[in-house]
Amino acid sequence: DGSLKLFTLNSNPKLAQEIADHIGISLGKCTVSRFSDGEVQINIEESIRGSEVYVLQSTSAPVNDHVMELLIMIDALKRASAKSINIVMPYYGYARQDRKARSREPIAAKLVADLLETAGATRVITLDLHAPQIQGFFNVPIDHLQGVPILSDYFEEKNLQDVIVVSPDHGGVTRARKLADRLKTPIGIIDKRRPKPNVAEIMNIIGNVEGKTAILIDDIIDTGGTITLAADALIENGATEVYACCTHPVLSGPAIERISKSQIKELVVTNSIPLPEEKRVDKISVLSVAPLIGEAIVRVHEEQSVSILFD
Amino acid sequence: DGSLKLFTLNSNPKLAQEIADHIGISLGKCTVSRFSDGEVQINIEESIRGSEVYVLQSTSAPVNDHVMELLIMIDALKRASAKSINIVMPYYGYARQDRKARSREPIAAKLVADLLETAGATRVITLDLHAPQIQGFFNVPIDHLQGVPILSDYFEEKNLQDVIVVSPDHGGVTRARKLADRLKTPIGIIDKRRPKPNVAEIMNIIGNVEGKTAILIDDIIDTGGTITLAADALIENGATEVYACCTHPVLSGPAIERISKSQIKELVVTNSIPLPEEKRVDKISVLSVAPLIGEAIVRVHEEQSVSILFD
Ligand SMILES: Nc1ncnc2c1ncn2[C@@H]1O[C@H](COP(=O)(O)O)[C@@H](O)[C@H]1O
Ligand SMILES: Nc1ncnc2c1ncn2[C@@H]1O[C@H](COP(=O)(O)O)[C@@H](O)[C@H]1O
Repeated sequence: DGSLKLFTLNSNPKLAQEIADHIGISLGKCTVSRFSDGEVQINIEESIRGSEVYVLQSTSAPVNDHVMELLIMIDALKRASAKSINIVMPYYGYARQDRKARSREPIAAKLVADLLETAGATRVITLDLHAPQIQGFFNVPIDHLQGVPILSDYFEEKNLQDVIVVSPDHGGVTRARKLADRLKTPIGIIDKRRPKPNVAEIMNIIGNVEGKTAILIDDIIDTGGTITLAADALIENGATEVYACCTHPVLSGPAIERISKSQIKELVVTNSIPLPEEKRVDKISVLSVAPLIGEAIVRVHEEQSVSILFD
Repeated sequence: DGSLKLFTLNSNPKLAQEIADHIGISLGKCTVSRFSDGEVQINIEESIRGSEVYVLQSTSAPVNDHVMELLIMIDALKRASAKSINIVMPYYGYARQDRKARSREPIAAKLVADLLETAGATRVITLDLHAPQIQGFFNVPIDHLQGVPILSDYFEEKNLQDVIVVSPDHGGVTRARKLADRLKTPIGIIDKRRPKPNVAEIMNIIGNVEGKTAILIDDIIDTGGTITLAADALIENGATEVYACCTHPVLSGPAIERISKSQIKELVVTNSIPLPEEKRVDKISVLSVAPLIGEAIVRVHEEQSVSILFD
């Protein structure tokens, strides 16, 4: 019948509910649990024969459990005759293993793409891939949503004066440019280099941050090392205040402690990865991607372009 | 050059070392660890270009981590130009999800087979699959080793008198038959049935166990429910002693407590799945499959039949 059904697995059930509310549907009935030995057990509790099924799962930590839940769910949906199986993956895990940087390295980001297709995924909707080239790892259609508009709307409302958007490394300049365009500010770049092996990195700042409010932007903040050192460098070079933002708050290991103790005034993130209780600190503000993803699902289901959502 | 290399991942490094010693080679140099966020990080520290590579990994608990380690390792080996990638999987996880018993169930055992092939496995060597039909889930060659000879050799040496081999359920009769043939004993079957839903199961024993030493055999012992109840039924029906054996000691949840408190005199298992410290109790004896698997690897590498190992 081609009806739209949205199921959630265990990575992000709250976001899934928000998306369902935004679309105005109920979440599909399904239990995703574990057998005594830890194997994933999935029970889909309603017919999905002929439906266009959307499955929400970020492959955030515990990443291997979340990947396997997703693959097994896709297998079950395929065998239950879903008309299409659309994976909604706000955070794409293993994205940093996207090339062979050294000999004999795996390319796990491509492996994950192949696994999803092998299981039976017919489309992927994702958000701010670590590298946009990962789109090319798929042979099925992929919609690549962008978080910058959500972050820029938030900063616009704050009405900060004399702002400069700063990329914490060379790789993120395009992203910084996009935010700066929306906020109508200049951009700066933290230009790290190591003069010789085993000598401390030199942090040079391209662009004048003196007397300015800096906004650092990255796609992922993981252990928080890069972003907190970047904030130090900005303050040392005369910035009056430092904000930071990212789409994907991985925040592993020492991240929360580092950010709490850092010179960052506020860290703005999205709920592409949920923040567990112990990671919720005053400094961190969370913006919802539910309206963006909900709109994208509706537009995909109605066969309309999704690029309008962030052009 | 077609040289044989054996690598181990994290499920069973001790068995891998034993196998390497048996063959008379060193284990391949490789580090399999985790990034701060939990993603698998693999460094293969020697060239494998043109080698015939064997990778040892049981997909025992934590099953999803062990599956993903294996898939990522296969990807790395493939991209590093291994001549062949031979997966040695003494315990095949997800094997009990081998058919749709109810509507909308996944068939995870087939999914795992597809994932291994997608990653790049060119051959699989495994041991006592929960269902031999899983061999047909693969399109690459699969060698299916059997643990019964190892178990029967052990019991033969014990020189028990007046023995009956008993299958704890209908599904395991073929396996019990094999052990009984080797030990030259009769077989019995625990014949469970539920007269109506929500009424306790009736345990009927086919075969006369009165005054006999019973040996229960199964492929997997997981929570220990089946095997300990079977032992009770045998003693109630006049068996003088009950031994139990299995190839794969999954032993999850209440298993160790149940077995310790049970009427089972000794439980004999193999090291297809390692027993962590807290699961090692006096009652449990562990037999090594290293000679069997080592021999199988050598024979596969030399393009000889492996069936001779258990015919
Ligand atoms: N989960 C991870 N955590 C930390 N580093 C990673 C992770 N995955 C990959 N990497 C490394 O990060 C580098 C790629 O990051 P990037 O240069 O930002 O694209 C590579 O050298 C990878 O080895
Ligand atoms: N890891 C597991 N632990 C317990 N039961 C399982 C597991 N995987 C599958 N099953 C169930 O076990 C049954 C198959 O076992 P069997 O009849 O022995 O082949 C099916 O009903 C499955 O739902």
